[in-house]
Amino acid sequence: MAVWTAAQLAHRFDLELRGDGQQSVTGVCTLTPGRPGHLSFLANPKYRSALRDTAASVVVLGPRDADSYSGTALVARDPYLAFARVSALFDVQPPCLPGVHPTAVIDPSARVDAAAEIGPFVVIDAGATVGAGARIAAHSHIGLNASVGEGTRLEGRNWIGPNCVVGARCRLNAGCVIGARGFGLAPTPEGWEEVPQLGRVVIGDDVEIGANTCVDRGAIDDTVIETGAKLDDLVMIAHNCRIGARTAIAAQTGIAGSTQVGARCLIGGSVGISGHLLIGDDVVLLGRSMVTHSLPEKGTYGSGWPVVPAREWRKQVARMRRLDRTEAKIKRLEARLGLASEPEQEGEPT
Amino acid sequence: MAVWTAAQLAHRFDLELRGDGQQSVTGVCTLTPGRPGHLSFLANPKYRSALRDTAASVVVLGPRDADSYSGTALVARDPYLAFARVSALFDVQPPCLPGVHPTAVIDPSARVDAAAEIGPFVVIDAGATVGAGARIAAHSHIGLNASVGEGTRLEGRNWIGPNCVVGARCRLNAGCVIGARGFGLAPTPEGWEEVPQLGRVVIGDDVEIGANTCVDRGAIDDTVIETGAKLDDLVMIAHNCRIGARTAIAAQTGIAGSTQVGARCLIGGSVGISGHLLIGDDVVLLGRSMVTHSLPEKGTYGSGWPVVPAREWRKQVARMRRLDRTEAKIKRLEARLGLASEPEQEGEPT
Amino acid sequence: MAVWTAAQLAHRFDLELRGDGQQSVTGVCTLTPGRPGHLSFLANPKYRSALRDTAASVVVLGPRDADSYSGTALVARDPYLAFARVSALFDVQPPCLPGVHPTAVIDPSARVDAAAEIGPFVVIDAGATVGAGARIAAHSHIGLNASVGEGTRLEGRNWIGPNCVVGARCRLNAGCVIGARGFGLAPTPEGWEEVPQLGRVVIGDDVEIGANTCVDRGAIDDTVIETGAKLDDLVMIAHNCRIGARTAIAAQTGIAGSTQVGARCLIGGSVGISGHLLIGDDVVLLGRSMVTHSLPEKGTYGSGWPVVPAREWRKQVARMRRLDRTEAKIKRLEARLGLASEPEQEGEPT
Repeated sequence: MAVWTAAQLAHRFDLELRGDGQQSVTGVCTLTPGRPGHLSFLANPKYRSALRDTAASVVVLGPRDADSYSGTALVARDPYLAFARVSALFDVQPPCLPGVHPTAVIDPSARVDAAAEIGPFVVIDAGATVGAGARIAAHSHIGLNASVGEGTRLEGRNWIGPNCVVGARCRLNAGCVIGARGFGLAPTPEGWEEVPQLGRVVIGDDVEIGANTCVDRGAIDDTVIETGAKLDDLVMIAHNCRIGARTAIAAQTGIAGSTQVGARCLIGGSVGISGHLLIGDDVVLLGRSMVTHSLPEKGTYGSGWPVVPAREWRKQVARMRRLDRTEAKIKRLEARLGLASEPEQEGEPT
Repeated sequence: MAVWTAAQLAHRFDLELRGDGQQSVTGVCTLTPGRPGHLSFLANPKYRSALRDTAASVVVLGPRDADSYSGTALVARDPYLAFARVSALFDVQPPCLPGVHPTAVIDPSARVDAAAEIGPFVVIDAGATVGAGARIAAHSHIGLNASVGEGTRLEGRNWIGPNCVVGARCRLNAGCVIGARGFGLAPTPEGWEEVPQLGRVVIGDDVEIGANTCVDRGAIDDTVIETGAKLDDLVMIAHNCRIGARTAIAAQTGIAGSTQVGARCLIGGSVGISGHLLIGDDVVLLGRSMVTHSLPEKGTYGSGWPVVPAREWRKQVARMRRLDRTEAKIKRLEARLGLASEPEQEGEPT
Repeated sequence: MAVWTAAQLAHRFDLELRGDGQQSVTGVCTLTPGRPGHLSFLANPKYRSALRDTAASVVVLGPRDADSYSGTALVARDPYLAFARVSALFDVQPPCLPGVHPTAVIDPSARVDAAAEIGPFVVIDAGATVGAGARIAAHSHIGLNASVGEGTRLEGRNWIGPNCVVGARCRLNAGCVIGARGFGLAPTPEGWEEVPQLGRVVIGDDVEIGANTCVDRGAIDDTVIETGAKLDDLVMIAHNCRIGARTAIAAQTGIAGSTQVGARCLIGGSVGISGHLLIGDDVVLLGRSMVTHSLPEKGTYGSGWPVVPAREWRKQVARMRRLDRTEAKIKRLEARLGLASEPEQEGEPT
């Protein structure tokens, strides 16, 4: 069990110490109710009142809150970030223990760095490479000529398709599938014919891919996830998409083929983006947005219809369905009063 | 092949027998068309007319329907439940056969009950425990210090993260991931920094988790699935959610971080619930509901826009987009007629 | 590395050659920018202008475009289909190499054809069968009495439940789960009771199932995926659904229990279809459609609310919520002017 004093933490993370430097902590806790011998943090002003009653022994907080707190504190300009760094000392994730488990099946032509860890029942195909400090956990499969960069973690039963490239310091959570066949089909009179998917998935450095997420390989060119992008669980990235650097995508979002998403976007959960679109840099898409046209301009976008009691929902649907008649009635009223009606544009939604 | 007579079933499940007690059945069938030598049931009055023509040899039904049925019947107050119990006699799921497959990799410090079954290529890490009667099927991985309760079934390639707790008599369908890293990220000028996810997933007793469903571990506190909750396939439960006892969640629903769902809720498929909300006990959410605010009150809620022919859908979108002009026209008409207009509230949807 | 001359390709695929038959290609490329020594195609007239500047050495195109192209060309009536067939020569997918990996665990009563390939850590249960030319990749599990047809590929860690049937020449992408327990539950005063799911999944020939997709087994009867159907990644097919021949379903779509989908349907991404419905043949559902009633008639259907800037979205929601008042105002205006108002139908959305 890790034990740290407040003074040690202040020194290690370059934070200002207030109060008892000898106070020790063995883990982290939430501010409410807090837990003696543990460290908490205050970042959201909304929780300021919780500071008074917390049982946490040490709190990471900002300069403004520090003045009104009498307990032991570590003062940081960005308390959430400082807390994130401190809490890593108590992380539960297994470290990389270099070595190859005797049950792993590794093709003789694969190059696995001696400082990588290869877990039980891992399969590594011909020509594949694994960098130093990488941790390939149980039941993972690295395909023909694929490569996994230094310090990257495959958390368990990850599948990396042929020729795919995963950069350095990435994290692939359990069950994600990188480089499955894209959904390319050509219609024939006798049914669908498969269009071979010859591209790769190319993932930059410091990328996170969520549990059971799927990133399909490209048809001809590659599907690309740029450096620092973060994908949550059960996300779908179709063939030939490009996801920009540092873009974050929440769970269950799906992006159809060949769409390009810019850098530093924030994409909420269960968003759907059609294929062949362009989403610019710094676009924010609220959860469950339905995107059927390109959004080249920076901004925050949303759509969808929040819940109401089911009885009212059914009425809303009926009202929406008769909007044509509602408009016609207005026209009739305008005509009666001799008011000119503007022409309506019945265009496609774009 | 199991063979049961109607009389044996009546005795075993405490049902009233009508007709030929020596009639035997070797399996179950639907009422239409039915199948000789098989058992069916009638629970929904809508299918009452099918009773006349069914080829089933024995039917489980309610007292009211029994009087008008001349075939062999087992009479139950809740025919669907009685049928469920009877049909378990013909279940196809493999039983627990205690023992450890020679290919399994089990850390010496793990405690696996002698009455548990550990399948091929299973990995059990240090400090983990598996209870009596548990069946851990092929390719599953039980992480560091995690525990799996008595009689629980891991159906295949399940991944249980470090320290996670799965109760007794649970069923984890193939591919589900329990305790992957929550999507905790802190922004920095150089990109996202991971916030360590130190909590666990704690699952009560009698819980079902669907195939390829993901339940992420908590950031500081735990993610909790209470006793008797039932989750379908491809569901996403984010870090620090709490799902109440006996709540059922249909496929592809996603619940964002720190949301609390009450007991006995019925949540339809593809529902999306934002983070940090409170859903009360006994709430029913219709399929595809979009929930962006708390719903503390019991009730049935819905949202969303059912399909229409695409041509009409495009017109609906256009009409909705010009609702501002529609309202302005009404105002103009009211002004012309000297009718006072109520002020509109342009508030946030809540 | 495969090398083909234009003349060889023309002969092999029965295409008309124009230009230099000795031009060789070693792979495929997109038209823009193109790549010397590679083959591209032009199918969409929108990209016709790219033909002039492409660096591709050989282009597959239609008769109309061939006349205005001076480079080496292969002329096809359906250039996309012809390209698909040619590009298969350069496919990256591993071929079937008959034989059983020494780590595979195969029950003695299973019948595995000598011309099938069984990969590392595969598990095949009692009574299961695998046909000639099938390729069962690493970490897959074929359950009790299940069968996999000739030439079918399980791409990696696929799970096939007991008694399930997969036809010939199918492709199951990594992580898909066929035949997990359907979500059948009966309410009791003490909580949910499992309804045994005794049916199978029966999959026809030439079917594709996407990565991490789930098809649940039937409760009594079977869940059926007919010949030539194509399912993308992360799709959910619930118990007792029937998906018609050649129907294509894009990623993240979910279909609830007992719904029947006809033949040759095109179902977009993230569509949700309620249970117990009938979708006719040749129905097209646009992405994210919400289907709550049967659609027996051929046609194109859609629903949903495309994104707008978030500020405008919030106003739209507010306007929609006050549509009842908007309608009331019109009624008041009509009354004032002595115009008769039609009665409104406040029916359920169907």
